Amino acid sequence: MVLYSNSPNILKQTKERWKIFHTPELKALAKIESSLMKGARKYFEENDFIEINVPHLTMATGACENINTLFEVDWFGDKCYLSQTGQLYLEVLTPHLKKVWCVGPSFRAEPSVDERHLVEFPLIELEFEGRFDELLYHIENLITHMVSTATEEREKELKLLGADVERLYSIKPPFRKITYTEAVETLKRNIEPSIEWGDDLRSSHEKYLVSYFGNKPLFITHYPKKIKFFNMIEDESNPDVVKSADLIMPFSGEAVGAAEREYRYNKLVERLEQSTMMKMLKEKGRSIKDFEWYLECYKEGGSPHSGCGVGFNRVTQSVLGFDDIRACTVYPLNRAMKY
Amino acid sequence: MVLYSNSPNILKQTKERWKIFHTPELKALAKIESSLMKGARKYFEENDFIEINVPHLTMATGACENINTLFEVDWFGDKCYLSQTGQLYLEVLTPHLKKVWCVGPSFRAEPSVDERHLVEFPLIELEFEGRFDELLYHIENLITHMVSTATEEREKELKLLGADVERLYSIKPPFRKITYTEAVETLKRNIEPSIEWGDDLRSSHEKYLVSYFGNKPLFITHYPKKIKFFNMIEDESNPDVVKSADLIMPFSGEAVGAAEREYRYNKLVERLEQSTMMKMLKEKGRSIKDFEWYLECYKEGGSPHSGCGVGFNRVTQSVLGFDDIRACTVYPLNRAMKY
Repeated sequence: MVLYSNSPNILKQTKERWKIFHTPELKALAKIESSLMKGARKYFEENDFIEINVPHLTMATGACENINTLFEVDWFGDKCYLSQTGQLYLEVLTPHLKKVWCVGPSFRAEPSVDERHLVEFPLIELEFEGRFDELLYHIENLITHMVSTATEEREKELKLLGADVERLYSIKPPFRKITYTEAVETLKRNIEPSIEWGDDLRSSHEKYLVSYFGNKPLFITHYPKKIKFFNMIEDESNPDVVKSADLIMPFSGEAVGAAEREYRYNKLVERLEQSTMMKMLKEKGRSIKDFEWYLECYKEGGSPHSGCGVGFNRVTQSVLGFDDIRACTVYPLNRAMKY
Repeated sequence: MVLYSNSPNILKQTKERWKIFHTPELKALAKIESSLMKGARKYFEENDFIEINVPHLTMATGACENINTLFEVDWFGDKCYLSQTGQLYLEVLTPHLKKVWCVGPSFRAEPSVDERHLVEFPLIELEFEGRFDELLYHIENLITHMVSTATEEREKELKLLGADVERLYSIKPPFRKITYTEAVETLKRNIEPSIEWGDDLRSSHEKYLVSYFGNKPLFITHYPKKIKFFNMIEDESNPDVVKSADLIMPFSGEAVGAAEREYRYNKLVERLEQSTMMKMLKEKGRSIKDFEWYLECYKEGGSPHSGCGVGFNRVTQSVLGFDDIRACTVYPLNRAMKY
């Protein structure tokens, strides 16, 4: 079965966007976004997660893997970055507060002007003291809470935008889980003979896999260590892979990136020094000093913890069944848009 | 009666802040912050406000009065700013969505390193289609929801930090309201013979007034037009003042800035052109073009609307009774602090 996407053209209008603010489509979209966010918060509140206000002007500790998409800010004559993630800021609190979360803008200096990229988007993040299995459980339930709050509160609006409400009702834990290795084998067998273990998955691959496995949210777990963030913990049975999970959703692709985290000091320093990120950082004239405060938190020991980041607009896109992320929020932002 | 402030010294530690993350004081603070934010959201949800994701990389339309504290960001070779407020982005949605809100970081390139200034803080903002009286009602009830959620959920933590819980129970609508003119007369009569109508109130003035009027949240309304934001609507009975309200809270001072907004196109253009902000903007080589999209939304008519911004850390500071805003959040940020 192939799912057809269905974005109302009017929501794709990015030039003079304010001219569509009066339309039923834009109003429906705003209400659906609001309910999705409410569902996420409800999940955190019901499960005793503490909300943390993390900084958005940071050192390289606010970066995701790709240092090159950091926006630079003049910091009183010095330099800092606009954060892409609050992950490390949450992680160091898990030994003390057990379960924490945050929501805020994630900034990417991404020049592409297309249906897949935004320069700023809300990122919902959680971290907790615990292991990989519990992490997948939290993600399944968080996403389900978001979707079910939208269907409960905004059925009329979802239908107005052409969303398939029946499909949304079917989103329930547990989600299907395959390993990265299974994903590669499936792709190799069916559509991509040239793919090799160790290659990153492209968005066309993710689309195929979601469709192949039933057009529902799909976890792809245990990625190769070398293509993932430096502090994802190695799998005990195979140190070439990490205990990571990407949640791939119909229409939007990767909506959640997740992992159990490394917490042993020596291992963290070693993995950071070897990381592609650190190589890129050094090319920018920075050093491991940017991570000093974070590493120090593990010097006297840490504890197993796990967490994830949920790309909010990607969840909205999947819920709506849209083919363009710019149609999935009131104020989409890319290089061609300014307000 | 004079209130004594009571910050535990340990929370004032800003150097190597991560070294206090394990303390009972920091953990209590994080939980109180989380409950205050939850209380705000509960208020918005119960009153059908729609949450909007506003952009944080903006033109001058993301600025508060003081353009000079805007952080500049390199925007693909061009220039943009880190937003200080989402106000205008919410305002233009009020004719269509009626009641909207947002929460996110507000950025100020403020070089002061002291107990009153932060470079980044969470700002809670609401806008709705309606008038001044309703605005004061929303603010009273929003603040009360925040405080009562904290006292209900975190009494133990509040006591640990030395907060006066009895005082917090007494925070209930309606709040006392005085006009700016009454405020100036009170100050002139009692402590500041040289103050003149038209002067801005200093934080020492605000402290005195809060104490004089009973150490409770205090609205000061109807400020002189010339010292306030360009789109605050003039009072019909006296066009030298605007329908504005600052909420002054014990310990922290101004925690909320609020106003009914101008919505008549010609008046908006005239007020904007005459504003201090526009003068400062022109000195930076910018023009009224930054506001084009916003003004266009009113070209074919607007409707009466009102709104406010709540400085989240100022509310926390007042609840805790602290003398230092750096002690009121997990990750305070100023020029001397980086993570």
